[in-house]
Amino acid sequence: MNFLEERIVKDGVVKEGGVLKVDSFLNHQMDIQLFETMGEEFKRRFAGKAINKILTIEASGIGIACIAARHFDVPVVFAKKTKSINIDGEVYAAEVESFTHQTVNRVIVSKKFLSAEDRVLIIDDFLANGCALQGLIQIVEGAGARVEGIGIAIEKGFQPGGQRIRERGYQLESLAIVEDMDCRTGKIRFRPQKV
Amino acid sequence: MNFLEERIVKDGVVKEGGVLKVDSFLNHQMDIQLFETMGEEFKRRFAGKAINKILTIEASGIGIACIAARHFDVPVVFAKKTKSINIDGEVYAAEVESFTHQTVNRVIVSKKFLSAEDRVLIIDDFLANGCALQGLIQIVEGAGARVEGIGIAIEKGFQPGGQRIRERGYQLESLAIVEDMDCRTGKIRFRPQKV
Repeated sequence: MNFLEERIVKDGVVKEGGVLKVDSFLNHQMDIQLFETMGEEFKRRFAGKAINKILTIEASGIGIACIAARHFDVPVVFAKKTKSINIDGEVYAAEVESFTHQTVNRVIVSKKFLSAEDRVLIIDDFLANGCALQGLIQIVEGAGARVEGIGIAIEKGFQPGGQRIRERGYQLESLAIVEDMDCRTGKIRFRPQKV
Repeated sequence: MNFLEERIVKDGVVKEGGVLKVDSFLNHQMDIQLFETMGEEFKRRFAGKAINKILTIEASGIGIACIAARHFDVPVVFAKKTKSINIDGEVYAAEVESFTHQTVNRVIVSKKFLSAEDRVLIIDDFLANGCALQGLIQIVEGAGARVEGIGIAIEKGFQPGGQRIRERGYQLESLAIVEDMDCRTGKIRFRPQKV
């Protein structure tokens, strides 16, 4: 097991309905030292890619993206889930369904912060059905920019999001891929990764 | 002017209705090198404080808080604006009115991540009327924890939030305090700080 898989086994909690709670270190309380190691690993997996910007989505992707950005020395843009009165002018938009909150959000990025010259690394904390990721890809490509890679902390390998994204030819790197988990025993099985 | 005031003058845009747009470097696109300097400055201003946790609020406080946390070597907890099905058990809650979005949110922190032993540094990007900050203070003190300090990137000195917080005796450190600004000329005047 790698460092993130070990941490998930140690502190993650398997709940009914395919819910993996990692809120003690990833997406409510955030272990910044863990995020540093994740950032180093993303840098290693995307070595040689000409990345000039990281795109994530509020809220729980922002911390991971900002720490990772130190290792790429690039700015971070986060997609917003509601139209703020502080966003003027035109925006790139996508409709995103939230597995966690069971809602549909309009996700927007100001056109000022994505252009055809951008080579974007998309980062998020979770990949399940892939709706958020599909929306971010749509936003990047709608700007004429290029998705150089996608870095995810935890992918639910038993949901279709990851396969759909890989079938489209993107370099998708999930630091931990949960193959299956049992809410009765709490047991978590990870997909072996040769990295 | 300090580094943040200079950046605000360079890239901030004054809009009608007391809106200062800093979304090119602070709260939509995020300049991580700037955040590093902000984190160093927060560490300097709160030197000697026994801080063991940083609390912020989604979404635009998270990036600043996570980079600052590297300088304090502590975890970050972010208050959530909606009740997620992934938050079980009890939460500390506060009602917070958003100046930017003109909405009232229920802000929550899981009781798992705040306790009476915690010595908390609250960090956020903006301080205007102080509603968000009052809510975070209420949550920290509701947990029996102690607010060791409050670090803000940009305070609108012409709104009452900062004065109300300081009158309550908290160490509130705003890296830039806008005394007034003119949306016709774009001119911004900062409150002098002796630091």
